[in-house]
Amino acid sequence: MKRILLVVAYEGTNYCGWQVQPSGVTIEEVLNQSLSRLLGEDIQVIGASRTDSGVHSLGNVAVFDTDTRIPPEKICYALNQRLPEDIVVQSSCEAPLDFHPRRCYSEKTYEYRILNRRIPVPTLRRDTYFYYRPLDVDKMQKAAEYLVGRHDFKSFCSVRTSVEDTVREILSCHVCKTLDDIISIRATGTGFLYNMVRILAGTLIQVGVGELEPDDIPKILAQKDRAAAGPTAPAHGLTMIGIRYPADVWDNISEG
Amino acid sequence: MKRILLVVAYEGTNYCGWQVQPSGVTIEEVLNQSLSRLLGEDIQVIGASRTDSGVHSLGNVAVFDTDTRIPPEKICYALNQRLPEDIVVQSSCEAPLDFHPRRCYSEKTYEYRILNRRIPVPTLRRDTYFYYRPLDVDKMQKAAEYLVGRHDFKSFCSVRTSVEDTVREILSCHVCKTLDDIISIRATGTGFLYNMVRILAGTLIQVGVGELEPDDIPKILAQKDRAAAGPTAPAHGLTMIGIRYPADVWDNISEG
Repeated sequence: MKRILLVVAYEGTNYCGWQVQPSGVTIEEVLNQSLSRLLGEDIQVIGASRTDSGVHSLGNVAVFDTDTRIPPEKICYALNQRLPEDIVVQSSCEAPLDFHPRRCYSEKTYEYRILNRRIPVPTLRRDTYFYYRPLDVDKMQKAAEYLVGRHDFKSFCSVRTSVEDTVREILSCHVCKTLDDIISIRATGTGFLYNMVRILAGTLIQVGVGELEPDDIPKILAQKDRAAAGPTAPAHGLTMIGIRYPADVWDNISEG
Repeated sequence: MKRILLVVAYEGTNYCGWQVQPSGVTIEEVLNQSLSRLLGEDIQVIGASRTDSGVHSLGNVAVFDTDTRIPPEKICYALNQRLPEDIVVQSSCEAPLDFHPRRCYSEKTYEYRILNRRIPVPTLRRDTYFYYRPLDVDKMQKAAEYLVGRHDFKSFCSVRTSVEDTVREILSCHVCKTLDDIISIRATGTGFLYNMVRILAGTLIQVGVGELEPDDIPKILAQKDRAAAGPTAPAHGLTMIGIRYPADVWDNISEG
């Protein structure tokens, strides 16, 4: 028995998110089916980030156990042959049998992309959120700096969750304008609450458009009330960029 | 009667190219139908670049004549309400009645994008050509420099065309690696032959992978034989970036 780790990229447009659920096709379900058929075993993956419906990924992580004799590094190639073109496994390797992608300390990076111009661009419609009112990137960056650190992010958590401890740590949060009128919000943290990055993005957009000031962010954090923060920005602007595990875990993983 | 100029962006994935034809839906056809319904007249647009099936655009140009009283600058907003989300008109303005987007001198810019890495990225699959063998960008740039200038591009023209004069002028051709493992080939010219940019891209890829040397380009040009150049790179890597008309034409256009 081996535990295999996959780095999984997907375009979330046509999926009801990561986690298996009755209402539609999910990434987890497609991986389970394709792996089970490839390996001739009943495979159940465990994902690191259970991304929402419509959210994309460049580097989500999943693990599963198998008795296969296919070399761990080759599994991604065999699996990609069976996956639809909007899910592509970037790499596969052996992980320690006790490695759990959500229970292990990790640093996750998400990017929220806003297309900020007068008129939409068709080729960018699936993975950027089109917002036509001009945004002040400097103000958004100032606001983002208040989010860095260990805070109670209750104001930035969907009320549709039962989580009790809403303290999380954001390690970095950068806002910058790239080419093609895209504003990128990149946040790295050791854990995020349900809808947290999308609510952060919705709130930073309110700062960018002048409805909030950067100095309002500490007040919003202090209120611990979802109603104090901005709206939840649409899912399709969000991409899970990647996950870093501590060096000793990665050492174990890469050694197989 | 007024002549209206549109700058048209589209994702070409779901279209059989620009030009109306029996075998499937085209950009031109959708524009004609949407404009005819919007304005209550029988509208026929004339396009500047008759892009192939699957090719994208950020700034193709089209003109049409109308008696409408809608202000020229507002037509794009009214039209976008009626267009599918993969076609978005970026701007509209009045043009001189005798302005023809293909007969007027113009400088067209195209970009061919190659995703050059070991494994595909799902969110980039529609507008980059995935090519996994490593490409030498410096060699590709050296080869591209031989293409600049006024040449007989017969070797870089599809045989499925009856055009007799195959001399064209390329004003610039740049190859560079951007973030995310994308190699961009940008070519600006006063005119391009059928499939010319895609054959240039296919040939530059052969240089990048070492099957041709940069010094082979002048020889390929001299042979005036389609078989001497590389393959036609796939359509979905190509984007029509934009078209510049001479300042006096643009002055006329922007003054309405």
